Amino acid sequence: MPVTPEQQAEIDAQRAMRHQTARATVPGMEAHLYEAKPVLDHGFIRVIDYMGDDNAITQAARVSYGKGTKSVQNDEGLIRYLMRHWHSTPFEMCEIKLHVKLPVFVARQWIRHRTANVNEYSARYSILDREFYIPAPEHLAAQSVINNQGRGEALQGDEAARVLEFLKADSNRAYDHYEEMISEDGQQGLARELARMNLPANIYTQWYWKVDLHNLFHFLRLRADSHAQYEIRVYADAICDVVKDWVPFAYGAFEDYRMGGAQLSGRGVECLRRMLSGEEVTQETSGMSKGEWREFMAIAKPN
Amino acid sequence: MPVTPEQQAEIDAQRAMRHQTARATVPGMEAHLYEAKPVLDHGFIRVIDYMGDDNAITQAARVSYGKGTKSVQNDEGLIRYLMRHWHSTPFEMCEIKLHVKLPVFVARQWIRHRTANVNEYSARYSILDREFYIPAPEHLAAQSVINNQGRGEALQGDEAARVLEFLKADSNRAYDHYEEMISEDGQQGLARELARMNLPANIYTQWYWKVDLHNLFHFLRLRADSHAQYEIRVYADAICDVVKDWVPFAYGAFEDYRMGGAQLSGRGVECLRRMLSGEEVTQETSGMSKGEWREFMAIAKPN
Amino acid sequence: MPVTPEQQAEIDAQRAMRHQTARATVPGMEAHLYEAKPVLDHGFIRVIDYMGDDNAITQAARVSYGKGTKSVQNDEGLIRYLMRHWHSTPFEMCEIKLHVKLPVFVARQWIRHRTANVNEYSARYSILDREFYIPAPEHLAAQSVINNQGRGEALQGDEAARVLEFLKADSNRAYDHYEEMISEDGQQGLARELARMNLPANIYTQWYWKVDLHNLFHFLRLRADSHAQYEIRVYADAICDVVKDWVPFAYGAFEDYRMGGAQLSGRGVECLRRMLSGEEVTQETSGMSKGEWREFMAIAKPN
Amino acid sequence: MPVTPEQQAEIDAQRAMRHQTARATVPGMEAHLYEAKPVLDHGFIRVIDYMGDDNAITQAARVSYGKGTKSVQNDEGLIRYLMRHWHSTPFEMCEIKLHVKLPVFVARQWIRHRTANVNEYSARYSILDREFYIPAPEHLAAQSVINNQGRGEALQGDEAARVLEFLKADSNRAYDHYEEMISEDGQQGLARELARMNLPANIYTQWYWKVDLHNLFHFLRLRADSHAQYEIRVYADAICDVVKDWVPFAYGAFEDYRMGGAQLSGRGVECLRRMLSGEEVTQETSGMSKGEWREFMAIAKPN
Repeated sequence: MPVTPEQQAEIDAQRAMRHQTARATVPGMEAHLYEAKPVLDHGFIRVIDYMGDDNAITQAARVSYGKGTKSVQNDEGLIRYLMRHWHSTPFEMCEIKLHVKLPVFVARQWIRHRTANVNEYSARYSILDREFYIPAPEHLAAQSVINNQGRGEALQGDEAARVLEFLKADSNRAYDHYEEMISEDGQQGLARELARMNLPANIYTQWYWKVDLHNLFHFLRLRADSHAQYEIRVYADAICDVVKDWVPFAYGAFEDYRMGGAQLSGRGVECLRRMLSGEEVTQETSGMSKGEWREFMAIAKPN
Repeated sequence: MPVTPEQQAEIDAQRAMRHQTARATVPGMEAHLYEAKPVLDHGFIRVIDYMGDDNAITQAARVSYGKGTKSVQNDEGLIRYLMRHWHSTPFEMCEIKLHVKLPVFVARQWIRHRTANVNEYSARYSILDREFYIPAPEHLAAQSVINNQGRGEALQGDEAARVLEFLKADSNRAYDHYEEMISEDGQQGLARELARMNLPANIYTQWYWKVDLHNLFHFLRLRADSHAQYEIRVYADAICDVVKDWVPFAYGAFEDYRMGGAQLSGRGVECLRRMLSGEEVTQETSGMSKGEWREFMAIAKPN
Repeated sequence: MPVTPEQQAEIDAQRAMRHQTARATVPGMEAHLYEAKPVLDHGFIRVIDYMGDDNAITQAARVSYGKGTKSVQNDEGLIRYLMRHWHSTPFEMCEIKLHVKLPVFVARQWIRHRTANVNEYSARYSILDREFYIPAPEHLAAQSVINNQGRGEALQGDEAARVLEFLKADSNRAYDHYEEMISEDGQQGLARELARMNLPANIYTQWYWKVDLHNLFHFLRLRADSHAQYEIRVYADAICDVVKDWVPFAYGAFEDYRMGGAQLSGRGVECLRRMLSGEEVTQETSGMSKGEWREFMAIAKPN
Repeated sequence: MPVTPEQQAEIDAQRAMRHQTARATVPGMEAHLYEAKPVLDHGFIRVIDYMGDDNAITQAARVSYGKGTKSVQNDEGLIRYLMRHWHSTPFEMCEIKLHVKLPVFVARQWIRHRTANVNEYSARYSILDREFYIPAPEHLAAQSVINNQGRGEALQGDEAARVLEFLKADSNRAYDHYEEMISEDGQQGLARELARMNLPANIYTQWYWKVDLHNLFHFLRLRADSHAQYEIRVYADAICDVVKDWVPFAYGAFEDYRMGGAQLSGRGVECLRRMLSGEEVTQETSGMSKGEWREFMAIAKPN
């Protein structure tokens, strides 16, 4: 349960608000507003605000005075053209603001995306809650044996149990000591900005995060990807579900050209042409390293 | 008249739209939406969209779940505190999108503010209109005799007339030739991306410009300042009039701490303390250069 | 001749300097330092400074204490891996500073790349020189008949002559009037910040431009591309010639994966697989629009 | 001892390099290059590279072809003018690259400064070392009783001992379990990207951090300030010691106008003028809140 009853009441109060506006408004997004979408065991994403819609993208691309007389179909075609040709500025004309609750080690990856606005809950000023991410058994993965930066099969039996026990016990002990250290009951009480350093990276933090659609797509391309760490990918997936309802044409183009697409090198293009003209090409005759060839064949001829 | 009747009709259609939203909505801004506010002889600013309000600033600063139980008065106090202590991220949580029509030489100054999103009308793709900025007589200023980067009194009599004649005649001749060069009537027609280079810097262009409130305040501090060139200052002033109605607490704090405030150097603080303790301080005993002393005295003891 | 004898003497003096440094140093770049490489009729690029080399990229990727014990070959392999997998931050660890002289209409395109540092010559403060870009006859191109944003064949005969005459005469007349307006000889003299607006977009300006290698590659991918306007492409090409000598491994990877590579959509990948398995695919059965199909076939089966 | 003998040997090898360069070179910075300057119990900063010097700032401001014929004194005057009038772009023309080893909770504050380039040691890919920040007794501070976001007196006696014991024991136990979880000895071994989440925020990480001088000054103004948390302030102080030797004029101007200066609000300027004209002003007659008045008096009349 990621939110308390008091928090849920505040959320419900905001969801019940109704204002009149002449701004671009998307009914599908209005339905998502403020609602906490659960992610991991205690996390969530909440849409706090949004600016623009599909039409705002083409309106900006055309620098137009109104919605334009162009048909909806033309909007979709133009959006696909803009995405295909790497035009970024029209997509920057849409903006979204999220409230996110997430483990600190996920936050540390997330913050690497610099072109966004962030306000994080301050552990210098406030006291953190006793909430830690403990993976579900099926996500307690072993180190990958083929990729230094990845994970393999789920841990089994005793090993899994031992790891879960470590994570739970260490988190709770660290939090007990955090509380004892900051307590002002019969003692001075350690400064919060110092006490927090005893807390492990699976503790939850939260922030307001605001980003434009172009930079959000960049984030999603990297973080909703199968190579991303599972714990951030589930946040990216939850955001995808919302963006789909916000800007359906732009999201469709993003899925086709970015998520579902592939990047070929100059050598790859050349091999492809040779293959299409009937030539048999092997790694040896491709001019590619083994790693490049493996990645190329996964695009051209997946088994 | 900065917009055509057809454009005005498109604007009116957008102004008449009414949607229901649960997003933060500011009635004062709704009244400004889409309307072309005239600036200079053919320019304007139009508010296309906005995200957030004063409460969105404090909400983000507190990373809260709802509007918060805090009173409006607390919101104002917190906003003033955040502004005074140079907290920037909460102000980044508000965003505004403008449509601006402006002379090219103003656009060239404006674009130096990099932390914003821009879509400009493309003169590679489209044909520019015959619209040039011709200063009103009272703004036809002489070069300043005391400041290399400024202007002095308005030009008088024959000189003023001669300058106006140059500006008008050269603009029109350049535009006539632009039209002749791109014409495909009985000739191939020069590429638009080349023909545009014949046009002078007082021709009007237009763009969609989207920026967060923190960076907008930075822009306004520099461009609504008395040292800014008059032709960009009038745009900044027009934006101030809108921001005032959008986020009145934040704008009030900005006016007090940024526009109306002053920055003292370490030497300035020391001189000030000496003066307040009754000492007579002169430029010679201040440790400041003449320029610094003049600027210091303009703050401390304006005549 | 883009630089005066006095400027050349200043350049020669800087080229003759010799300092001892323990910083990463690239002999090939030292040879380029300060030299004005001519571009267009009066423009140039000059390398003013650089930070880092190929090794600085891998050093940062490994967060290492020294140059690392890894072989040069490993450096190249790692750089290709980083480029292929869109790792951007290691490439940001190299930085270059250029002095560029360029026509204003080129500067207006260039400045759209926001992630760079710029100091432009100030026409509020200083007086611009009488230098205008006049295209060579072979670059005086007609508007493209198939692409709204491009150019076709070179203009012929009388039309070409007429266009050149317009460009030259209008530039010179505008500059004559600029000089007359700012003259303080027997008159007040118009403020420079106003007089400049009479000057056309083919006048030359200049700036210092500093950018990291990742963002430079992004600039080069868009501006050294065949779809870029010729007048900015020649600047990008001149920069490529320098970067090649600065970070040869990174530049090689950039050429292979970005300049020579291709981006396929999800639909494109699917068509490709069908074609490689022997199926005949046409635009009608591809699921692509005509434009997409044309672009896809230009990758897969160029004639 | 923040570096191992092997690391020190790599550092010494880099310090011994000597190359010839025509780039701007600062002897005082050459002496700092690569050397690990200790910060906290296991951390350091190391200068890896730098671009530019004081002259590079004025050269860019003047967009000049050489070092300029202006005297060194003029350089200092211009730099002070640029700093006083908030010109930022000339300072962006200098760049510095640091290798920093720092506790994770410090890294989390540091990374909030977005306008910089960062490569952090990857705990998805590599194994972290057993190194934790344990405060010296005099820095083991109590929560401030007057400021929610600050610290008071050092903890005394038993309480201090108990806190130190918690920090040490919890760190070590967490690290023991981290090692046990990732061990592949007789078990699968937990993925590193998961195991790291058991580690507390006082563990050390490291990164390469590259930033321009303007943004570095912004960082230093906030982090070398007395309100910054002690553990980040010591890093900022160590950087100040280096910058002082790199760009002495710019650093001097920064100290005078930013670190040693003060920002007055419009109300503050007005009160100041009243006081200088002999009027007795109190908080009640100042128009300021108590907090603002206290801060104003700390500038005007510190006791």
